[in-house]
Formats: sequence, structure tokens, C-alpha cells
Amino acid sequence: MKRYLVTPLVLVFIFIISFALQAQSNKLNLMPVPHKLSVDGGYFKLQKDFSISIKGNPDERLFSYATRVLRRLSNRTGLFFPQDVLTKDNTINNDEFIINCNRPGKIVLGEDESYDLIVSSGKIELNAETDLGAMKGLETLLQLLDIQNGDYVFPNVTINDKPRFPWRGIMIDASRHFEPVEVIKRNLDAMASVKMNVFHWHLSDDQGVRVESKVFPQIQKLCSDGLYYSQEQIKDVIRYAADRGIRVYPEFDIPGHSTAWFVAFPELASAPGPYKIERNWGVFDPTFNPTIEQTYEFFDKLFAEWTKLFPDEYFHIGGDENNGKQWNENKDIQDFMKKNNIKDNHALQAYFNNRILKILTKNNKKMIGWDEILHPQMPTNIVIQSWRGTDALVEAAKKGYMGILSNGYYIDLIQPAEFHYLNDPVPQGSGLNESELKRILGGETTQWGELVTPDNIDSRLWPRAAAIAERFWSPQEVKDVDDMYRRLDVINFRLEELGITNIKNQEMMLRRLTNNLETKPLKTIVDVIEPVKIYTRHSQGVKYQQHSPYSRVVDATQPESNIARWFRKTADKFIQNKDSKAADELKACLSNWKENHEKLLKLINASPILKEIEPLSANLANISETGLEAISLILSSKKADENWLTKNSSILEEAKKPYGQTEIMITSAIEKLINAVR
Amino acid sequence: MKRYLVTPLVLVFIFIISFALQAQSNKLNLMPVPHKLSVDGGYFKLQKDFSISIKGNPDERLFSYATRVLRRLSNRTGLFFPQDVLTKDNTINNDEFIINCNRPGKIVLGEDESYDLIVSSGKIELNAETDLGAMKGLETLLQLLDIQNGDYVFPNVTINDKPRFPWRGIMIDASRHFEPVEVIKRNLDAMASVKMNVFHWHLSDDQGVRVESKVFPQIQKLCSDGLYYSQEQIKDVIRYAADRGIRVYPEFDIPGHSTAWFVAFPELASAPGPYKIERNWGVFDPTFNPTIEQTYEFFDKLFAEWTKLFPDEYFHIGGDENNGKQWNENKDIQDFMKKNNIKDNHALQAYFNNRILKILTKNNKKMIGWDEILHPQMPTNIVIQSWRGTDALVEAAKKGYMGILSNGYYIDLIQPAEFHYLNDPVPQGSGLNESELKRILGGETTQWGELVTPDNIDSRLWPRAAAIAERFWSPQEVKDVDDMYRRLDVINFRLEELGITNIKNQEMMLRRLTNNLETKPLKTIVDVIEPVKIYTRHSQGVKYQQHSPYSRVVDATQPESNIARWFRKTADKFIQNKDSKAADELKACLSNWKENHEKLLKLINASPILKEIEPLSANLANISETGLEAISLILSSKKADENWLTKNSSILEEAKKPYGQTEIMITSAIEKLINAVR
Repeated sequence: MKRYLVTPLVLVFIFIISFALQAQSNKLNLMPVPHKLSVDGGYFKLQKDFSISIKGNPDERLFSYATRVLRRLSNRTGLFFPQDVLTKDNTINNDEFIINCNRPGKIVLGEDESYDLIVSSGKIELNAETDLGAMKGLETLLQLLDIQNGDYVFPNVTINDKPRFPWRGIMIDASRHFEPVEVIKRNLDAMASVKMNVFHWHLSDDQGVRVESKVFPQIQKLCSDGLYYSQEQIKDVIRYAADRGIRVYPEFDIPGHSTAWFVAFPELASAPGPYKIERNWGVFDPTFNPTIEQTYEFFDKLFAEWTKLFPDEYFHIGGDENNGKQWNENKDIQDFMKKNNIKDNHALQAYFNNRILKILTKNNKKMIGWDEILHPQMPTNIVIQSWRGTDALVEAAKKGYMGILSNGYYIDLIQPAEFHYLNDPVPQGSGLNESELKRILGGETTQWGELVTPDNIDSRLWPRAAAIAERFWSPQEVKDVDDMYRRLDVINFRLEELGITNIKNQEMMLRRLTNNLETKPLKTIVDVIEPVKIYTRHSQGVKYQQHSPYSRVVDATQPESNIARWFRKTADKFIQNKDSKAADELKACLSNWKENHEKLLKLINASPILKEIEPLSANLANISETGLEAISLILSSKKADENWLTKNSSILEEAKKPYGQTEIMITSAIEKLINAVR
Repeated sequence: MKRYLVTPLVLVFIFIISFALQAQSNKLNLMPVPHKLSVDGGYFKLQKDFSISIKGNPDERLFSYATRVLRRLSNRTGLFFPQDVLTKDNTINNDEFIINCNRPGKIVLGEDESYDLIVSSGKIELNAETDLGAMKGLETLLQLLDIQNGDYVFPNVTINDKPRFPWRGIMIDASRHFEPVEVIKRNLDAMASVKMNVFHWHLSDDQGVRVESKVFPQIQKLCSDGLYYSQEQIKDVIRYAADRGIRVYPEFDIPGHSTAWFVAFPELASAPGPYKIERNWGVFDPTFNPTIEQTYEFFDKLFAEWTKLFPDEYFHIGGDENNGKQWNENKDIQDFMKKNNIKDNHALQAYFNNRILKILTKNNKKMIGWDEILHPQMPTNIVIQSWRGTDALVEAAKKGYMGILSNGYYIDLIQPAEFHYLNDPVPQGSGLNESELKRILGGETTQWGELVTPDNIDSRLWPRAAAIAERFWSPQEVKDVDDMYRRLDVINFRLEELGITNIKNQEMMLRRLTNNLETKPLKTIVDVIEPVKIYTRHSQGVKYQQHSPYSRVVDATQPESNIARWFRKTADKFIQNKDSKAADELKACLSNWKENHEKLLKLINASPILKEIEPLSANLANISETGLEAISLILSSKKADENWLTKNSSILEEAKKPYGQTEIMITSAIEKLINAVR
């Protein structure tokens, strides 16, 4: 009997958690938190005659946005609203929901994105200088939707909102694994819903150049495996982003990270070819030759074409991780350096960057690049994207350079939302004066592409990117981690309506992993493990390549285990105060994990792809037993004997080992429980 | 206690069913069933050094196909295969898996699609005249993948395969609701996996014209709400389809079903404008004016452009459901008919068709249209697509016309897979001679777009379209319905790897419907109900329009309830033989449904969109109680008294009523149980 008792208990328990999350209607679920907010306890009731009236002087973009908002509301509520496609020509007059908007915003850095939203019992008013502000206000309104007494309602609020930083971005690496247009579009929708406004498109690297050129068609033919964006697709994405208030700028990573180019243009490399598209991950030698005029003639022609394709004023040239090997080994390059008094590779790269800068300037672009482009020879109108950290950023700001922070926002490294959330672009005690502070424009989270495919890229980005979006938008003092996690769960669910796949594709991947058998035992373990962190996935005996399967258990895990986070907090609480409710909850979880192993074994036997996590599952069962015994000891105020401690410490050490590049996330809590009975 | 007991019992039970499905390795899961097949009981073991060697003279298309097959195998198994992108240039020599292919196939009606596949313990050989045949063989191989003793294996088989009909299609209506390119592409992948070879793209109707024209840009500007396919996208889809052995041809439905055109070209309609894009569903009056030369000048220019865009030799002009009202009411048209001795509207439409035929012929196209285009004036090289039925098709074949069947394959009407599966393009006793029989080219299933969106279109098409694919491919005598359903479940799961969303999007929709609370009680009822059938959804007090919410419970149901089908069969068995195992299984289900109502009520109170199915849920609980009581009576060989019968018959009648345009699918079984105790 016990087998059946435990599972529903846990289920019921999780059910209660969910209910609690939703039912806290006194706590709003806004993310990012607005600049200023007040509530009055009343409600605006949403009914089937609801309609939107747009006044002022926006262009069609806002009408389209409002149409989509109406469809999203309709899909959530099942209400049949009368308005079909809103346009300037069919605008209606009603007093129920009025959007006042003075002008279309420019899709440029620093445009006005502020808005005021006033919901009262009979009326909603949204006022904004630009449609970019109005879009932000519409997303806030959608986040306000709640349920009261069987009705859909918006709580009465007065919101005055504006962003803290003007540059709030996501970088997606579409080179290492290609990401089709629909992946980009759904992520643009998700970005807009949390008020992000910059999409940095990493379009070339050793593993592929992903943009069509009409001038050099060899690029798409030879450097991309046929996986590239046509110019029409790029224009479509840029228009789609602009319709959502998002800037798009490209990155072409040069002079390093450039193997794929040389499949078509071996003569531009710093060592003789031929070259093949790189299939491995890492930092590689191939680098553009900065000492021959051909290189600049090539970029002069190519960037004349591609700077027109991307209308944003910024253009990213990468510049990172040039290991200099090809330069060191090429006698002509060494001679060139001597002849021109170029003292080292960094200076040679600055020479290269300066030549590229001239090409960009001629084409009306400003340069942005990674920390490495910073060099005394570079002018101060470039923007530094810092992967190195806030120190580098502060130093750059003092030297007069503008910068954005990406260190601490490397979301592909599978760190907790909390870590990213508390990472501020402006460090405490930076010592920057007001004009230097303004040079810190914001930040970008980076989704490098080695370990993701269209199937699971969303799960690496979301929901954690929403916590980063809040860091970039909300006042600096907003940093209640528990409340952030509470809201993150709601946002995560809401992102599904925009096509974000992290929840549904996990279920799909689990079905595949179990060969379509019952997925619950697998879900039980997957929910309490995480992929190994930072770069360790590459150092555990598995050689990942571009064409490896990214469909194993590690790829189906979420980056952050909610249940493990809850378990760790509850264990702390229990150890402190021996609370019996906490003990019951912990025991229910532990019993479930303990008994899961036997059920999972059946699945493993039926689906060999699961074999690699068999030791992990056994270890989870073992430490769960340890945890149960420790809790009993604590409850009866007993200490463990030496034998028990020796045995269980060794069980714990074993359970800390990763398998299949995943690790159990409750070992620290079990360790604390062991220490509490020591 | 009872509450917790019942649920796991049902779960365990379903678990056993799934296991049984997968474990029958003596029964293959091929769909469609091949022309000839033998097995020898041995296995080819799939290991991580597996590679593919392609010989003969195919073009790059087959290398790309094989690359995708390798990735699908790798994703299923987690095996790290060495081959990255297969090309003609990097072909390897191995003896393990050899594909012999003589030539690239032409993407035309009647091309050779046959193949032989021989799997033996150390070797796989796939032989085909064309790459189209080789592609079919690769899909067969993927369907053969199985598990034996912890290894992935292919069972040894000898297969000689070829299609019964050369025209095996799906029509998707992208006019009533626009379907983005990624929806089309994933459905092309699904089609290829079940050996379908024709995609009929319904691109214009009253609610939108969906193709970019460079000659008449007003079309995309005014007739599409901005939702249209660019010419580049169309070329991309056609190339994508060809890479999978699939022909693509367009349908522009004229002279009726044409409201959207007249937003841009009111002068071509048979009544004065202005016109708006139609937002409602049905048959509407607007019709091209066949009596003015402007109409033909327009199509002459437009089709000169669009016939080049679509390289297939066929071009569909619709022709259906012209209600003739605008013609009857237009004096000029009536005068024209009198003057030219055109006796009725059908003859006038034939005149129109003949004029259009001349334009198509000039552009090297053959005409295809719905039954209505059949008229003595039309030449016999046109193809008739029959929505009326096999009688019409047989009649057409006798008159010398080629035809394809769509009657009985209207998959949007939510009929059971069995119904479509047993519907044969060539009816028993058709009386057709051999050359007439050859005129019946095959068939197409039609997915009309009124009630689907990109979120749930896949669930309407799949998995049932796979049963239709088998009807078109496999020998006529293959018609074991139970075995079809057994294999359909496996295919349904496998289609997920191609991006088909019917399983995962149902889960997403249930989350949305419950406002992210526990979805299980909702799933329990959704699993045993179906949308109302045929066209009744439009006649139940709900006025559906293009912009209505298609996110309600009815939209989240599957077209065919597996558990209800199982329940009906098991109830029949139990009534016949009073089998106690069947009784236990039925009782477990009924208890679960009975107790579900209380749990669902909590969700309904927390999510108003669910309110409409409250009576349905109460009725399910009530008839479940009825069923439980009837089973008890049967087991104790008692009959029910009059009171019981009166009361429960009335409960049953109430439960037959649809709510929210859905209906409970076990009422017929409950009725049989009641009758058994009468």
C-alpha cells in the first residue's frame, strides 16, 4: 500500500504549491517589476464585449500589437471578442480601454520606452509617448490578468514605468547549431513579453557562417552546410523584432573563430588550407590574415552588402579568443609586424580592428565587440561587450568607452536564476561618476550554441532570462530572490502562449527517452537533477561534436531543479526548528525518490539510452534512505553512531559523482542532515 | 483510501497496455504495411560505429535524406555516430549498410517509388531505382528500430515494396487560418515518414489569398491581413517537399469562394463592391464575373506568374460551391448567357473553366478541380478531385477522366481512423475495366482550416492521416482495423521526432485551460470526450469566426478517444462472457470517472474557461455510477427494476447531450450495459 500512498501525497503537495502560487492575488505576478506601482484592491472585469481603442498618432505596428494582445486574451479566457484585425482604418471609439500614443518609436538605442497604465473598475487607460512604451504597457496588462469569483479581471493599478538601462539583450549563437527562423521569432516574442529590447545575433563562428550573400554566394554554398538565413528571412526577422520594439544587430566574429569562412576563402587565412567546417567545440587556430590587402577588400565588399541588410546602428565584430598561433607561425605576418612596429598580437588585432572600423564607419555603423577589442588605438565611440566582468567594464567606462555586461549572464552555463539575478551591471562601490555611469548601457545574456538544438534551446534560455530581464529593467533595489522565483514560475507558464517550448519539449524528450512508456519514474529523477555546470560537460569523457545526439537525459533536464531548491530550503528549516510539517514533506519526497529506483530500472531495461543514469538513480535512492534515517534520528533527538556516519558519508560521496553529465541536486541538503546527527 | 487506490490502478493498467504495445517485437510496427515482407527472427545490432554508404547515381538529395536519418537514429538511441554531413564527396565505403540507387527520381506523378530492403544479421542493403524509392526504404528502416536485450536492433527482414496508388496526398487549407511555413514543413516530414507524396496547398478562399504576387502586389497587401507566403517561402517549401519525394501543387479556388480577392479587385466580382475579407465560415455569394474579358486578362497575367512559381504539372482551380446568386442577380451576366446560349450556371462555370483551362494549357499546366468542374465541354486530361464520392469518381473514370478520392477522407470532420481506413478509392464491384481503373489515381485527405490554428492543426491530421496513407500505399486486402490502431499509436509517438505537436500541444493547452494548475482531472475527462462530428460544431449556438478563440476544451480534445474505444470493446466483451478481468478493468475506469467530477470542479472554480464542461463532467460521473451498478447487477446475474431503468435511462439521455461542442464517447457502452440488465 505504501507505494501508492506516497506518490499521491507528493502530487497533492505539489498541487497545493501551484494553487498557492496562483491564488495570491494580493501579490501581483509582474516581471519585470515596474518602476512605480500602486494598487487599490478593486478590479476591472473582462467581458466578451471587451475592445481596444487606440488614439494619438502611432503607426500600424501598434494596431498589430494590440490585435495580438486581444488574441492572447481571447485564447486564455475563451471569450469571443468582437474585434478582428485592428487597423488605423477600423479604429473604434470606446471608453473602456483607451491607448494614447503620441508617435511611433524609433528602433534605436535610448528611445523612450516609458508608459503609464491606470486600471480602474470601469476603465483602462494606457498612455505612452511612443508605441514602444505602449507595447510594454500592454505586456504589463497581460501579466495582470487574474481570476476573481469566476470572472477574468485586471486588478486596479496605477503604474508609472520606465527602464533602468536602455540596452537589455539576448545573444543567440546560431552558428554552432543553426536555429531556424521560428526559433528566433518565438524567442523575440518571449523577449518582448519581459520588456527586453535587443537581439544580438551571433551569425558566424568556426562551425558555420549563416547569412546569405549575393556578392559572395560561396559563403552560403560552402560555409553553412546549407543551414543559413536568406536575406529575405533576415529582413523578416528584423521587421518582426521591430514590430515588438526590439533592435537586431549581427555579430560576425573576426579575426578568430573563423574556420568556416576559409572553406570558401582559404587565401584569407593566416595559414594555408584547405579548410573544412569545424565539427568540434573549443578555440581553434584559423584566423584571418590581417596583413594582406585582400582581407580588407573582401570585408569592404561584404560589409557594404551586409551593413545594408542590418539597419541597426551597431555592428558586432566579435574579436574574442584569437589564440594567435597562426599569426606566430606565419613568417610574412611576423615580417609585417616588424616592419610596421606592431609589438604583439593584441596590437596586430587592434590594427585589424581599425581597418575594419574604417569599413564600418564608411557604412554608417558603430562598432561593438568583446573585451579584446579595447585598445588605446580604438576610438571611444565603440561599445565593449564584457565577458570578462564588471571590473573590465568599469575600467572601460573610465576610459570613455560605452559598455554592456555579459559576464555573469552566460545562461548556457546552467547556473541558477538567483546567480544571474543578483549580478548587477553596475557593481557596488564602482566609484564611477554620473557621466561614466551612463556609459554602462545595460547587458546581454548569451546563449552559446554548442549544447543546444531547436528542441531544447528554449529550456536553456527560459525562464531564467526573465530574471535577467528584470535586472536590466527594474530599479536596482528590486532583489527579493524568493519573490523572483515565485513570479518566475508564473512567467514560465505564460511564455508557452508565445510558443516557448521548454515545458512541452521536456515532456516530448522524456517520451522519446522512455520509448513512449510511462514517463513518470524518469520525470521523478529528472526533476531533481541538473546538467553539470560551467564547462564541465566537456571534460567527462564524452566528446561532443556538432552532430552528436542532444537528446539524452542531460539534454532533457531543466537547468534548475525547483523541487531540489525547495528541498534544500525546507531541510534547512527543519534542521533549525525540527518542524514536524517540514519533516513530513521532506519524508514524502525522500520516500518517493527511494522507491523510484525500482520503477526506473524497468524503464532502463526497456530503453538503453537511459542506461547511463542507472548509477545516479541508485545513488538517489541511497541518499534518500540516508535522509529518511537522519530525519528520524533528528526527530527523536538522537545522534548517529560511527558506523552509520561512516557508511552514509561514503554513500553521500558516491552520490556527488555526476553520471551522464548530470548531478543530483539534494546532496548538500543530505550532507546537512548527516551533519545534524553527527 | 479508495480515492488513491483507483487512480494508480488505472495508471498501472495503461502502463501495461503501453508495455504490451512496445514489447510485441514479433509484431512489426510498419505503417503503411509493405507490399511483400518476410522476417527470419534474427537481428542487426545497431552500434556506435554505424555508418551509411551510398552507391549508384543519386544526387545530393539522397545524401541529405540519409544524414537526417542518421540524426534521427542518433537522437533516438543516444549513440554518437561518426558521420557528420553526408555528401557525394565524403562518401565512405563500408559493407554494413549500403544504399544502391540508380538515379534521382523526378517529382512527377507516376515516378518509380519502389524499393527492396534486406536486413540480415551483419548487413543492411537498400536497393531502389530512384532516390524516391530509397527514401521510402529509409523510413521503413526507421520504423523497424527495436530493442533486444538492452541493444538497439533492426529485425532481419526482406521487404519488396511499392505503392498501390501513385497519388497519395494531404490538402491543407492555409486560407481560412494561415499556417506558417514551419507548420507546413513539419507536416511534409510527417507525410514522408508514412510514404505520402502529394501536398495540395489550398491557398485562396473567401478568408484570404495567401501568395505573394510581384505582378499584383495588391493581393498580399489587401487580401491577406499580411498573412501570406512570399515567393521565396513557396520555393523553399517546394524544394523542402521535393527533398522528401513530395509533389506540391497549389489550389486557387475560383470562381466562387473568392471574397478576399475582391478587396483588391472589386471590378472582377459579379456584384458591385466594396468587399471586405470574410471573417465568417460558410458558403458566400461573391464570385468572379465570367462574362467580362477583364477577368481573363487578370488571370492570364497572374497565372503566367504563379504557374512558374509552382513547377508541378498540375494546377488546382477549385470550382466548388459556387452558389450562383451573384450570377442570377446580375442582368449583364444573364444577358451574356442568353446571347451565348449558355443554359445554366453550371454551363456558365464550364465556359469560365474552359477559358481558364486555355490559360493553364498555355503555361504547360494540367487542370485539377473539384467534382463541379466535370462537364461535357471539358477535355479528358483534367483530374477530378471528388468530394462527392466514389460513385462520382467511377462515373468520371468511365467518361475517360482521371480522378482522386477525397470523399471519406475529410479529416477535419473528426471521424474515427477506422472510418477513413476502410474507405477505399476503388469501391467493391465498381465494374471498371483495367484501363478505367488506372484512371483512379489515389486520393487526398483534406484538412479544412476553419477550426484549426497552428497550435492544434497537427492533432486533427495526425495520427489518423497515417491510416489513410496506408490505404493509399498498401495492398487493398490490408484492412485489419485492430492492428491498424495498434500501429497507429506507435506511429503517433514517432511523429513527434519530426516536430508533430499533437501530443505536446494538447498538454500545453490543458495547462493553459487550468491556468497552470494540476491538469490531471481535466486530462481524465478530455481523454474520454471528442469534439462533435461532421459540421455540427457550427450549429450549437456558438458562432465561430476567423478570430474566435480556438483554445477551449473542444480544441484540446483528440479527434478519437483511445480509452473510450477500448472501453466500448471491453464492455461488449464483458456483456458477452461476464469475464471478471474485464469487469475489474471497466470498474477501475468508471470509478475514476465518477470521482473525477469533484476534482474537476475545483479546477473549474479556479479557471472560468472550463465552466462550459461542468455539466459534461457531472454527466460523466452520473453514467459512470450507472455503469458500475449495471456491472454489479450483471456479475450477480440480476436484472434491474423499473425505477432503476427509468432513472438511469434518463441519466443516459442527458449524458448524450453535447456541451462545449464536445460529447462523451462511452454513452453507447453504458446503454448496452443498461440493456443487459433490462
